[in-house]
Amino acid sequence: MRTRDILSTHPNPSAHLDKIVALVNSAFACEQCCTACADACLAESGEMDLSHCIRTDLDCADICSATGRMFSRQTKPDSAVLRTQLEACKAACDACARSCAEHADKHAHCRVCMECCRECSKACADLLSAMA
Amino acid sequence: MRTRDILSTHPNPSAHLDKIVALVNSAFACEQCCTACADACLAESGEMDLSHCIRTDLDCADICSATGRMFSRQTKPDSAVLRTQLEACKAACDACARSCAEHADKHAHCRVCMECCRECSKACADLLSAMA
Amino acid sequence: MRTRDILSTHPNPSAHLDKIVALVNSAFACEQCCTACADACLAESGEMDLSHCIRTDLDCADICSATGRMFSRQTKPDSAVLRTQLEACKAACDACARSCAEHADKHAHCRVCMECCRECSKACADLLSAMA
Amino acid sequence: MRTRDILSTHPNPSAHLDKIVALVNSAFACEQCCTACADACLAESGEMDLSHCIRTDLDCADICSATGRMFSRQTKPDSAVLRTQLEACKAACDACARSCAEHADKHAHCRVCMECCRECSKACADLLSAMA
Repeated sequence: MRTRDILSTHPNPSAHLDKIVALVNSAFACEQCCTACADACLAESGEMDLSHCIRTDLDCADICSATGRMFSRQTKPDSAVLRTQLEACKAACDACARSCAEHADKHAHCRVCMECCRECSKACADLLSAMA
Repeated sequence: MRTRDILSTHPNPSAHLDKIVALVNSAFACEQCCTACADACLAESGEMDLSHCIRTDLDCADICSATGRMFSRQTKPDSAVLRTQLEACKAACDACARSCAEHADKHAHCRVCMECCRECSKACADLLSAMA
Repeated sequence: MRTRDILSTHPNPSAHLDKIVALVNSAFACEQCCTACADACLAESGEMDLSHCIRTDLDCADICSATGRMFSRQTKPDSAVLRTQLEACKAACDACARSCAEHADKHAHCRVCMECCRECSKACADLLSAMA
Repeated sequence: MRTRDILSTHPNPSAHLDKIVALVNSAFACEQCCTACADACLAESGEMDLSHCIRTDLDCADICSATGRMFSRQTKPDSAVLRTQLEACKAACDACARSCAEHADKHAHCRVCMECCRECSKACADLLSAMA
């Protein structure tokens, strides 16, 4: 990811750039992990029902995609929109982390995905604090 | 859109299906309008600065895309995640409608986009009320 | 969808607007159907293995999303990019229609999704012909 | 990005995993750079018309998003769909790199974005060769 390089070249860079870079990187990494975890769950042949885990993975990937794109923009933001998006993203990451945690000892992809979700949730919380 | 047809064939359809169908249709229509409005603003040759309008269009398109996809799913949802997503989507649509309203008399694409955003905001509010 | 309304207000509308409107509407409808079909397949309790159908649904939804957004733009396009995207979208829709066709008699969501995919594939082919 | 970690935990990992990891990482990085470059171009106050650059950025971001997601999946792929997607992604990255190259000496975000696009185009070409 070249996130810091490109965000720092904006004509009018944001405050809290460190936290924004951390969030953008976490959000795209989480979208990737959730997409891959849903797909790996789909291929598991065990008797465990992974449908809730797949559902939370897919929702989390879609919210993280929107978050990564929105915080890649710095031109004339609406801060109320950005804050509610961080809250939605944090809720989705927390829900997906809980769901993956139930299978983390059995499926390594759920463990990696749980870690990605927790990291992205923390990045949302850190930026929400800084923007408060 | 075949939204009602396909959502009603789920093995375990959601409560509030009418409101979900309205939301999903509004969200995809709003994503389309916001994407087209940003693009048309980009091609306008007038002296008006449309950069804030383009920014709110692009953010709104990304959030509406996530909303349309998430509410197209009915398997084992996390209701807290869905509610915060509706709040984020409503905030984005309201901000974009306000921004487009400033140019609605001059640019027809901003008028159409404003109407799409208001309709999607209303669909978010209606479903939030039903889920309360 | 307000696709025709908003695309016709661009300062410099595209040639082939009828075919573009048909494509954009089909692409968003197909993204919605594929997302819902993957989710409904996930909730089916039968003995049939639907994992290939879910995979082709998810890929088709992602490609159709990109197609719907790209053809919602009319400002200074690169026609070679647009043509290869139509070819990728047609290939994804054809693959997903074939996969859903295998289950269309048993699962109504696969039948609706198959119809959406065929309609979007035809819209891609029609626009490719017009652009040739 | 935890791409290699999570893709290697799939029950049935793909051939060409090194090239897939490189592609997925490049595609998400390119989506991020193109989104940020479009936004930074929008904020530039110079006399240069950046509308074609913004257009190619937005199209490239949407195609790269689909590519990053599709190659994050390994379950029962359709190889013809994957190949045409790589061709579409390569075409979009090449077009965006050309457009950014015209402004790379003046705008640092265009230089970074050009580099991201070239890297993603190369990753597409490498995987296309391996899959041939």
